[in-house]
Amino acid sequence: MAESSRPEDQTAVDEVLDAVVIRERAPTIRVGISGAPGAGKSTLIEALGQMVVAAGHRLAVLAIDPSSDRTGGSILGDKTRMPRLSADSRAFVRPSPAGATRGGIARATGAAVILCEAAGFDVVIVETVGVGQNETAVGDITDLFVLLVGPAAGDDLQGIKRGVMELADIVVVTKHDGPLRSMSESTAAAYSGAMSLLRTKHAGFAVPTLTVSALTGESIDDLWNEITNMHYRLVTSGLLESLRSTQAEAAFWAELTSRTQDDFRQALANNPSLVTIVGEVSRGKRHPRSAATEFWKSR
Amino acid sequence: MAESSRPEDQTAVDEVLDAVVIRERAPTIRVGISGAPGAGKSTLIEALGQMVVAAGHRLAVLAIDPSSDRTGGSILGDKTRMPRLSADSRAFVRPSPAGATRGGIARATGAAVILCEAAGFDVVIVETVGVGQNETAVGDITDLFVLLVGPAAGDDLQGIKRGVMELADIVVVTKHDGPLRSMSESTAAAYSGAMSLLRTKHAGFAVPTLTVSALTGESIDDLWNEITNMHYRLVTSGLLESLRSTQAEAAFWAELTSRTQDDFRQALANNPSLVTIVGEVSRGKRHPRSAATEFWKSR
Repeated sequence: MAESSRPEDQTAVDEVLDAVVIRERAPTIRVGISGAPGAGKSTLIEALGQMVVAAGHRLAVLAIDPSSDRTGGSILGDKTRMPRLSADSRAFVRPSPAGATRGGIARATGAAVILCEAAGFDVVIVETVGVGQNETAVGDITDLFVLLVGPAAGDDLQGIKRGVMELADIVVVTKHDGPLRSMSESTAAAYSGAMSLLRTKHAGFAVPTLTVSALTGESIDDLWNEITNMHYRLVTSGLLESLRSTQAEAAFWAELTSRTQDDFRQALANNPSLVTIVGEVSRGKRHPRSAATEFWKSR
Repeated sequence: MAESSRPEDQTAVDEVLDAVVIRERAPTIRVGISGAPGAGKSTLIEALGQMVVAAGHRLAVLAIDPSSDRTGGSILGDKTRMPRLSADSRAFVRPSPAGATRGGIARATGAAVILCEAAGFDVVIVETVGVGQNETAVGDITDLFVLLVGPAAGDDLQGIKRGVMELADIVVVTKHDGPLRSMSESTAAAYSGAMSLLRTKHAGFAVPTLTVSALTGESIDDLWNEITNMHYRLVTSGLLESLRSTQAEAAFWAELTSRTQDDFRQALANNPSLVTIVGEVSRGKRHPRSAATEFWKSR
């Protein structure tokens, strides 16, 4: 219901969300994990997830697939992608049918995170395929963002969506095994160099670059240590509280903006002359400012 | 007047903007130039600008200084920073008092760009110091974005605001002269490597990294050639038209959003209980969704 876009589901969900959000809890760990198709997200989360539950946590994995919809086969698909984790009673794996928009993900998956935590899951992984604005949306609802990249050389390295590197708290190069081992290391060196040119997201928090193998299990424990250590520092420094506070305020204003946009869409549907205005702006026949004034007055 | 935030200035400016925007013109060149303090923006623009006017263009330089305000001494300051260009009748140098917000820059400086073009300036440089959201705003109102970086080594390289690299169409390492010459080259190599990891902004448009010296004039002509060639390709491929169309539509919706936010601010000022709601969201006592619903209903 939290993921529903039907207005009649809104009120009941709002009440539940308010009821669970005010309960005092120890801080949960919310991790965003993203990577291009083929970077090895499923196998990594399968391996990492088993380590997380073995450490005594209850783990929820919310997988955002922009191509999925409510009636599609994604639930089966995700269970097939992470068979052992899906069969583990300490873990909960679920596709989040949030659609492809940033607003949709932040809204629906953000609520799903809160509800999973209320249900007792203390580690939540939000997984998304790296194909656009998804990563930013995931960054808006998680504490830490892990960017997965596969080993590549030369021109094949050129694949990260501009703007995604800025989100990463941890960079993980996958497939550090077999014939790809040395390529995984040189890829890590390239990303490590690139990340060092960027200002860090939180002062004093460098962005580590790890090479891991989900196949052999190598350094999966290092990744989990890195996540928990970084999260602990965020908690004890007070940065987590301020981050979540900022996220909540941003979500609030985004909600209001989204309602406004619904209003604007309604106005466009009811008033063909407003559609004409937008077209004129797009074709450079009117300046955006005067057009907005007219739209605002006649909506 | 276009830069004014006083409502009573709005109507007349809207009429002027509409009148000039519909005139058919050859495409002008709008270049954003940004860099950290000390990267050498003024001296570079002084050198580049003289080359631009010598090539027969009329040049407007709009300098956004987030610390400036209308009554401050920035006009004198900018004339001192670019003395030869300021004294040249073919050039127009002006601080743009847009304030520090992205919306303000896009709105006020965006209008100033249109008015400069209507006044016959066919090359417009929008300069901003790289300290936050400015660069994104400048990217929203220009055709090409040039990122200036000074020579640096090791830890000093770590200075680019996350997310700014994604905007760059051309990276320029300054001070390629004297004792900094070799450091300028190694800095260029580091950025070139980092940029190669990112997807290009337009398919088929690589991001060149140039080393230039405003002091000796070395490669300033290469930079101007790079700008004009890239711009020509944007024009002939149709990408410029679609870019400007996208920018105009975004500016239109941003205008509407800004009016909505004014409405929300008004509601907050008139209704103390709404302020309480926002505080509860911020402290994690209410979920953003239900809070937004209540705010929306009682505004």
